[in-house]
Amino acid sequence: MTTLWGGRFSQRPDPLAARFTHSIGFDQRLWDADITGSIAWARAICRAGLLTEAERDRLIEGLEAVRAEWASGTFVIHPDDEDIHTANERRLGEIIGKDLAGKLHTGRSRNDQVVTDVRLWLRDVSRRLRDALIDLQKAAIERAEAGMDVLMPGYTHLQRAQPVRFALWMMAYFWMWQRDRERLDDLMRRADLCPLGAGALAGNPFSVDRHALAEDLGFPDITQNAMDTVSDRDFILEFLSWAAILGVHLSRLAADLTLWCTAEFGFVTLSDKHSTGSSLMPQKKNPDTLELLRGKAGRLIGDLTALLTVVKGLPLTYNSDLQEDKERLFDAADTLMAALPLAAAVLREMTIHPDRMAAALSDDLLATDLADYLVRKGMPFRESHHVVGRVVRRAEELGIPLSQLPLSELQAISPLFDQDVKDVWDFERSVERRRSAGGTARAAIEVQIAQARKLVEE
Amino acid sequence: MTTLWGGRFSQRPDPLAARFTHSIGFDQRLWDADITGSIAWARAICRAGLLTEAERDRLIEGLEAVRAEWASGTFVIHPDDEDIHTANERRLGEIIGKDLAGKLHTGRSRNDQVVTDVRLWLRDVSRRLRDALIDLQKAAIERAEAGMDVLMPGYTHLQRAQPVRFALWMMAYFWMWQRDRERLDDLMRRADLCPLGAGALAGNPFSVDRHALAEDLGFPDITQNAMDTVSDRDFILEFLSWAAILGVHLSRLAADLTLWCTAEFGFVTLSDKHSTGSSLMPQKKNPDTLELLRGKAGRLIGDLTALLTVVKGLPLTYNSDLQEDKERLFDAADTLMAALPLAAAVLREMTIHPDRMAAALSDDLLATDLADYLVRKGMPFRESHHVVGRVVRRAEELGIPLSQLPLSELQAISPLFDQDVKDVWDFERSVERRRSAGGTARAAIEVQIAQARKLVEE
Amino acid sequence: MTTLWGGRFSQRPDPLAARFTHSIGFDQRLWDADITGSIAWARAICRAGLLTEAERDRLIEGLEAVRAEWASGTFVIHPDDEDIHTANERRLGEIIGKDLAGKLHTGRSRNDQVVTDVRLWLRDVSRRLRDALIDLQKAAIERAEAGMDVLMPGYTHLQRAQPVRFALWMMAYFWMWQRDRERLDDLMRRADLCPLGAGALAGNPFSVDRHALAEDLGFPDITQNAMDTVSDRDFILEFLSWAAILGVHLSRLAADLTLWCTAEFGFVTLSDKHSTGSSLMPQKKNPDTLELLRGKAGRLIGDLTALLTVVKGLPLTYNSDLQEDKERLFDAADTLMAALPLAAAVLREMTIHPDRMAAALSDDLLATDLADYLVRKGMPFRESHHVVGRVVRRAEELGIPLSQLPLSELQAISPLFDQDVKDVWDFERSVERRRSAGGTARAAIEVQIAQARKLVEE
Amino acid sequence: MTTLWGGRFSQRPDPLAARFTHSIGFDQRLWDADITGSIAWARAICRAGLLTEAERDRLIEGLEAVRAEWASGTFVIHPDDEDIHTANERRLGEIIGKDLAGKLHTGRSRNDQVVTDVRLWLRDVSRRLRDALIDLQKAAIERAEAGMDVLMPGYTHLQRAQPVRFALWMMAYFWMWQRDRERLDDLMRRADLCPLGAGALAGNPFSVDRHALAEDLGFPDITQNAMDTVSDRDFILEFLSWAAILGVHLSRLAADLTLWCTAEFGFVTLSDKHSTGSSLMPQKKNPDTLELLRGKAGRLIGDLTALLTVVKGLPLTYNSDLQEDKERLFDAADTLMAALPLAAAVLREMTIHPDRMAAALSDDLLATDLADYLVRKGMPFRESHHVVGRVVRRAEELGIPLSQLPLSELQAISPLFDQDVKDVWDFERSVERRRSAGGTARAAIEVQIAQARKLVEE
Repeated sequence: MTTLWGGRFSQRPDPLAARFTHSIGFDQRLWDADITGSIAWARAICRAGLLTEAERDRLIEGLEAVRAEWASGTFVIHPDDEDIHTANERRLGEIIGKDLAGKLHTGRSRNDQVVTDVRLWLRDVSRRLRDALIDLQKAAIERAEAGMDVLMPGYTHLQRAQPVRFALWMMAYFWMWQRDRERLDDLMRRADLCPLGAGALAGNPFSVDRHALAEDLGFPDITQNAMDTVSDRDFILEFLSWAAILGVHLSRLAADLTLWCTAEFGFVTLSDKHSTGSSLMPQKKNPDTLELLRGKAGRLIGDLTALLTVVKGLPLTYNSDLQEDKERLFDAADTLMAALPLAAAVLREMTIHPDRMAAALSDDLLATDLADYLVRKGMPFRESHHVVGRVVRRAEELGIPLSQLPLSELQAISPLFDQDVKDVWDFERSVERRRSAGGTARAAIEVQIAQARKLVEE
Repeated sequence: MTTLWGGRFSQRPDPLAARFTHSIGFDQRLWDADITGSIAWARAICRAGLLTEAERDRLIEGLEAVRAEWASGTFVIHPDDEDIHTANERRLGEIIGKDLAGKLHTGRSRNDQVVTDVRLWLRDVSRRLRDALIDLQKAAIERAEAGMDVLMPGYTHLQRAQPVRFALWMMAYFWMWQRDRERLDDLMRRADLCPLGAGALAGNPFSVDRHALAEDLGFPDITQNAMDTVSDRDFILEFLSWAAILGVHLSRLAADLTLWCTAEFGFVTLSDKHSTGSSLMPQKKNPDTLELLRGKAGRLIGDLTALLTVVKGLPLTYNSDLQEDKERLFDAADTLMAALPLAAAVLREMTIHPDRMAAALSDDLLATDLADYLVRKGMPFRESHHVVGRVVRRAEELGIPLSQLPLSELQAISPLFDQDVKDVWDFERSVERRRSAGGTARAAIEVQIAQARKLVEE
Repeated sequence: MTTLWGGRFSQRPDPLAARFTHSIGFDQRLWDADITGSIAWARAICRAGLLTEAERDRLIEGLEAVRAEWASGTFVIHPDDEDIHTANERRLGEIIGKDLAGKLHTGRSRNDQVVTDVRLWLRDVSRRLRDALIDLQKAAIERAEAGMDVLMPGYTHLQRAQPVRFALWMMAYFWMWQRDRERLDDLMRRADLCPLGAGALAGNPFSVDRHALAEDLGFPDITQNAMDTVSDRDFILEFLSWAAILGVHLSRLAADLTLWCTAEFGFVTLSDKHSTGSSLMPQKKNPDTLELLRGKAGRLIGDLTALLTVVKGLPLTYNSDLQEDKERLFDAADTLMAALPLAAAVLREMTIHPDRMAAALSDDLLATDLADYLVRKGMPFRESHHVVGRVVRRAEELGIPLSQLPLSELQAISPLFDQDVKDVWDFERSVERRRSAGGTARAAIEVQIAQARKLVEE
Repeated sequence: MTTLWGGRFSQRPDPLAARFTHSIGFDQRLWDADITGSIAWARAICRAGLLTEAERDRLIEGLEAVRAEWASGTFVIHPDDEDIHTANERRLGEIIGKDLAGKLHTGRSRNDQVVTDVRLWLRDVSRRLRDALIDLQKAAIERAEAGMDVLMPGYTHLQRAQPVRFALWMMAYFWMWQRDRERLDDLMRRADLCPLGAGALAGNPFSVDRHALAEDLGFPDITQNAMDTVSDRDFILEFLSWAAILGVHLSRLAADLTLWCTAEFGFVTLSDKHSTGSSLMPQKKNPDTLELLRGKAGRLIGDLTALLTVVKGLPLTYNSDLQEDKERLFDAADTLMAALPLAAAVLREMTIHPDRMAAALSDDLLATDLADYLVRKGMPFRESHHVVGRVVRRAEELGIPLSQLPLSELQAISPLFDQDVKDVWDFERSVERRRSAGGTARAAIEVQIAQARKLVEE
């Protein structure tokens, strides 16, 4: 048996139990981080006088040999390798001899080792996710700039509300993703701390210098309390919360675009490259990628709920329940590493149809402007709102668009209506009126885009 | 390109999109069900006059050849095989020629095909889960019978409450699992319906006989509405709800047993076969399997939450979001197929320590019996409860067990206490007094076990 | 202090703690069930010889007096009433004297009392929910019958797929709700069991006849194991699962209808009575009720997740965490008691627009029929699918509807096309072709409706 | 009808629908924030030339009069008041006249108004939560300092692992809460932004100065995009994620302490003030407050799941589903405003039992130290781990504590054991050896506490 323990045990594990408890099936992804951590540990215990420099160097050499096997795909997992830590230490012993390999784990526990591995892995992945997020933001900026002149109905409650520039809609997503980026930076400040040297739960008995270890591994600081260190999974919970919220943002984008891809809306056509067909219906072109982007939010919410529930009510310190953390983390990270570039590609390659958008600009989108017209004539807004409500009803009764109501009809409802009311019926003017910060006027959007550009070029 | 559609498309999928949308990575598990469904379909469309009997036979032969490849592990997945349906049809074409293979999908859609596959798969898995559940119930009965004579403290709020037989505790789990079994039977009545022939969403245009199809595939009945059929995932949601509740039951068992494995309780020792050691601390024997059983509840709750969230707010009928159903389902089923036999093995092989349990039977567990003693002397219960509360306080002040309080002390609190109060201090008698149905007296538990035996031997 | 315990305590609760632990704020809803349960209990302990008949009658009289106070809104909650059980017992003592009132709790615990109350309450509520569900099903049948002649596009992936009858769409929801009803019946078989007499956890020491109690309270049977009885919340978890799945169904209905209420689809107009306006935009008529129906699914999923998480990992038997069950249960039941009748009203009072639906019947919806046409001419379906894909592409290139493609164009793609192809371009005929069970042909839907009628008239 | 819209409607709401859609039942909590926001809005539209200064002053006076009614509990909600915004505007009209009151909503929508209210409310609540969190951290520091000399077993997998100072355990929670505090500060940077002036979705048409508005309301900055502003609920999702993680921390504290309150552990006695009794069992003293603290984590996870699910898949911009946000937010904030001070009180007033902790310090806790002893003699750790495993097994066979094994027995297992091995059997020395940062040695904990002190005294 090659497990790292076993001395006090008189029976081998039940195969059922082994299958249930072994994590090598999924934690082998941590192979690189595990070796990096072990090399740093070899240096640390050498500094602490537990290894000679020659021993340290042979250990490092051996660990690099193990790394090379993983990198080349030649590493062979042994049935007794319960986890990546066991596998790497077992293989190291085969390469450099058990005596020296057996010194590596001095003063270390798998409890601090595994969170070191995960934190190292997450640091790397989070950088790649951050880059993918920035690229998605860039795609939004590009589309916003290209769509500055395009007017479309803005919707609330899926009902036509007020005319907006396509660019305003697009930039709304930019800001969601900007918050996602800030959240990622925030959480990584807490994730990027060195846990190594915390031991099983009580700290290190060989005076290992944890700050030097942190520096060696590129962590800006260390975790502060050994018991907390080995039982804390906050950094994963934060990551999963982050992933779930980002997933929700992508799901909203998908909701908008699947709607716009309908024959009825027709505002957008997805690239063939991002669509799929039907096995039965030859005409179908389905926005499959969007639907999956929407569905992934459910998956990410499930990952978060799962781990929150796992950690809830656990006594300190380490319990094996925490082994459930990694599959959730990997799943969320993989999901987003696939979703983010795809969302960017979809945005960049979809075709928008300004004509269809323009055709959807119906007069009722200007009802607020009509009320504002009366406000400018001195009527209190609440009254003007009511008056225009009656105008809308009248137009519906007559079955004509608002702008076609004769002045006489309008004046029958309020004498404040005058010839100049015809100026209200101009979508461009409506849009340009909303030039306060955040509004849909061109100038206001240009301010947004300028800020956005700075944020992605930092 | 070997996709089942493509005729109207002018571009191949973006590789990013292909990776994101292809489900072959996980739905290949449905290979057997997919072939079974296709064979039934071939028969159905032959009956409907769309195939000759010779064509049908060659199709079935071809499908069996594909099945043999999967069974022997020689089936090779092609990069364009987006899902198991595509893979099987593509391979069928290679074996029997595209012309004939191309007739198989007549009047069928992947929308009805995939739910047929999943329902067939689930039928098989649910039977195996049901057997595993029954075996777990049997393990509980065995332990209950063996532990009939063992008394232990029963706990509420983790505080010692009243003495109970170990058998009563063990049988509590039996009944949880009995409800789980009933729930599984209930949900399978709804899951075990034939969807095939519903088409993409509107039904079958070739007058295929869906009842004959159902019979052929061993389904007791068909689904009733084509649009519902292709968009419904209730049977998976029900299964995941079932799995989550069963997971919660296992987590409670694990909570009890991990506690009892502590040095402080010491009621139970797990088999070495179900324990693991520490890489650092040589004395450790950790109830790893129990902790993972507890943790799996979080995973199962996450699977359920994920799919509920995926389906929430989806317009009819099929949307690709629903593709997220399978990984959740497989994960839940696999988790329980591993957890149930392991839980049974843990129960069967753990050692209980009646001496430690007996040592934990402290006098305060009989405080209710003391109050009942006063009730039998005519004191209203609420008053006797209060009187005994003061007795408990007095014993704490004096630092002695309840049973050691001199009669004079008791009588100073209530004159109803008499010599016969000493009969209260008998745990066996306390337990035997609770002989109403469901109670901890031997006879009452024997009734339970007899019922239970019948339920597992049905 | 009027708490039911306190004898052994030397300090009053911290007001902070009292606020945190008192459940009277929400469990007062159980007042009626609590009194009903107590009356049955008085009868039971009288039968067991613990009360004289005169005492029993005075207790019942007193309990009815307490009930009358609740019913008339004159019951005054006392600051020390931690829960409904304490409040009722305290008030009973004030009315009939503490001595007699103090006998009521003999052999009973709040642990079995509270689940008795909740099960009684749930039985009543579940009946009302069932009735509301049946009424909703009736609304679906009515609309389906009235909409039998109305054709509309059926959608998959929100893309137009095949023409269907409005009635088929409507009946899809009927079947979802039918499953909900079956699930409710199933779970109530497990919920409708009498827990009373289980005591705190070990059963009843006064030989109370639990079967007689059950009969008295109208429960068909009793729970089987005292420890399970007081710690089991499966019946609430099942109810919450049920509520979440039903909530998801309502959310899908809402998703369809909000879409159809858009200006772009325009298939449906909601009654003014089920719409709200905007405080700013006078033209707006928002399908507020539908959006909330959709949103409630999230709330119900949250209720379920919450309680699953609460119960996960709890040791046996009762723990105060379980007190969290009631707010979740009440919230889910209230949500559905409001949502179901509203959904029925929305369905009954919405106006559908067959003209807008007809206008959306574009030729591409018949592409499958065109492929089937070729199948009938002898072409393998997979080839005909591909051929029609090319036809679709050609029509797109020419910018004309499919049916306007000259025969010569068609024949350039496949020589099997002939004059009779013009018969394909008939939506009614397409619909009527799908007459297999569950299909969209009139006859098939009539079968469905006939079955449905029977199910609601049982 | 006093709704803010209604002009275009011809029917009053269905009472069922009104009950379903009205939010006044819960959003009335925002009364103060709503009035504060309206006063700022009056100033803003005055600056924009839409009100005279006299009008503005009368509006503000009127709004203060409404505020006074709420503050004194005399505000009467009208049946048509669908939400707090409507109620306040309606009442304002009654006080200062409809004409002037009717000007207040000029250029404002309830869409930007409601998020202004919620953000103002959250700002206030988050400050109080932060203070409560700091006080809880102080309680932890106090207990840690007082418990510096107390040794106890540290646990992994609930098995005794290594001896630790009580102070190390206590400080583990300090750091969890420190992360919670940092997370709260991080999220409030994103929550504390002024949305007012975004209008319904398209921005403000009267050139209102949003930066001045922000300054007026004490927001450091404004939101950047009108469409995002009215549909974004990230700040609530972040708050709920924060609350769930904090809830999980409290649940772990509760898990540790409920365990330690058992008769079997006996490390801690809760104050009577934080305990409750049993209605049946007179001896019971239940750690009710702890159990509820643990249970609340489930509730908070449910709140988070609910809102994530609600927002998932919503098209832009505002949809009424978002109305579900407030009850979740209020529930989470209320739960924690009750839980945090209670947790602090529990910590401060519980009694710890150093004697019981000391009694639990069994020799096996020093097995790692024994292995380290061999390492110091030159044996590779992995070998020494194995050797000590055999020592443990031998001691178990002989049924004696590790420290009682004769030297001869030890030497039979490894010749490296010598007389000085007896020095290993000293818990204080073991603890003091772990003096690396984060370890359990006194000096290392003092460093932690000094850092912690600084963090709470900032």
